[in-house]
Amino acid sequence: MSETIGFIGLGLLGKPVARNLLKAGYSLKIYNRTASKVEELLPLGGIQASSLQDVMTTGGIVITVVSDDAALESVVTSEGFLERLGKGGVHLVMSTVAPETSRKMAALHAERGIQYVEAPVFGRPEAAEARQLWVCCAGELAAKERVRPLLEAISQGIFDFGDQIGAANIVKLCGNFLIISAGRSIAEALQMAEKNGVDPKAVVDMLTTTLFSCFIYQSYGARIVANGGVYQSNWIVVKDTGLFEQTAQKVGVPSPLAHSLHEIAVEMLAR
Amino acid sequence: MSETIGFIGLGLLGKPVARNLLKAGYSLKIYNRTASKVEELLPLGGIQASSLQDVMTTGGIVITVVSDDAALESVVTSEGFLERLGKGGVHLVMSTVAPETSRKMAALHAERGIQYVEAPVFGRPEAAEARQLWVCCAGELAAKERVRPLLEAISQGIFDFGDQIGAANIVKLCGNFLIISAGRSIAEALQMAEKNGVDPKAVVDMLTTTLFSCFIYQSYGARIVANGGVYQSNWIVVKDTGLFEQTAQKVGVPSPLAHSLHEIAVEMLAR
Repeated sequence: MSETIGFIGLGLLGKPVARNLLKAGYSLKIYNRTASKVEELLPLGGIQASSLQDVMTTGGIVITVVSDDAALESVVTSEGFLERLGKGGVHLVMSTVAPETSRKMAALHAERGIQYVEAPVFGRPEAAEARQLWVCCAGELAAKERVRPLLEAISQGIFDFGDQIGAANIVKLCGNFLIISAGRSIAEALQMAEKNGVDPKAVVDMLTTTLFSCFIYQSYGARIVANGGVYQSNWIVVKDTGLFEQTAQKVGVPSPLAHSLHEIAVEMLAR
Repeated sequence: MSETIGFIGLGLLGKPVARNLLKAGYSLKIYNRTASKVEELLPLGGIQASSLQDVMTTGGIVITVVSDDAALESVVTSEGFLERLGKGGVHLVMSTVAPETSRKMAALHAERGIQYVEAPVFGRPEAAEARQLWVCCAGELAAKERVRPLLEAISQGIFDFGDQIGAANIVKLCGNFLIISAGRSIAEALQMAEKNGVDPKAVVDMLTTTLFSCFIYQSYGARIVANGGVYQSNWIVVKDTGLFEQTAQKVGVPSPLAHSLHEIAVEMLAR
């Protein structure tokens, strides 16, 4: 654990991930666009980087946890990023992006002898805080082995989808699509039940102790009941249903349900 | 268990239910539109009724397991049905129908002093065979108490949604809607993954041991993988998404996802 790891992105997910790496004893040099966010990690041993490029040690490991395809592309193509990371370096990318974006980014790294590991994660910020994330990863075996201890320090389980970059993001998009579909159908069901005079909590209690006794239904069921039957849309729901639909369209797979969920999410967010 | 129970409807669900009641020691007088289907229950002690009306003992219990609203209505309004069942009788209705149909039927029974218990069940025919159904029920307490041993003999659990007829069917429609939504999204996800070069079984294995580690995702996941990524539509999927949508519309709840699932199911069935 003597090498210093570069860390970029202290958003809702990035901050608890960085905190858990620091707690596990890793030395992190951290960059965030809003520099003040780095400050609360300094007492845990975090080192403030003076610039995006400054997080990197040539031949070392850099982790990015940025919000979307555009943000990832902007980091990778920023002046000096790949040069500084350099040959033998590993870039561990935890964002959920289109598999195509991931492959394009990986190719840019490969040209310079840098290894690219995609490792999108499942879990809300609370889960990240509690080291309860689930990781999907893909990339070259040696690179995955090198970053495995880091992934172990932040998650409850790692699923390896092989060496083809894009595969882990495909699984992540599938999972997010299933989560969004579940969330939206729970909301529609509970609203229908409640307006018909049936207690939504009783419906959730029955279904989540029988057919749907799993984390997503239990947690979303409770949250949607508490939220008066509403499953909020947000830009992540819009982005991920959109990415799913595009990724299906590109290989000629019809996805009418993803299309519908995307439309519903866009319309709800507009309101 | 000395009283003879009337039983109407030996479809995919009715047959295993009748079989389990016979195995539990109940005396059943059975009617089915296609009379030959009753024959295989005779060795278990089933009694063949000569007509629909013949299954009934005045003041006794009759169970119907028929396919839809129209079939239920046709049985209840058939010549002599309510007269034969008579005052003090209980009609235990296991079909999934619109709550409105259920309330209309219950009112016809109430006029003659007959108690109506709605008890739609969750579970495929294999689950019914294995006494693994889940029952949702609603109706007058005394009537529910009277039929409870029958329900216990065919299920792994009974959920009571009170005395308002319609409530159990509302919960059943919510559950079926969630199941259909899950099935359709699993299929879309696995097709998208497979055409993008990711093994669908690996996707199912990951998701159903983590976020979706529950019966519906595990069983539908395995079946959809075995079925090449296809989630078949059938008339039940069309009927239940349609009933859900109508039941939501009647109380002014928008249900764009149910609408979309209904359209997809109709279109798939037409192909």
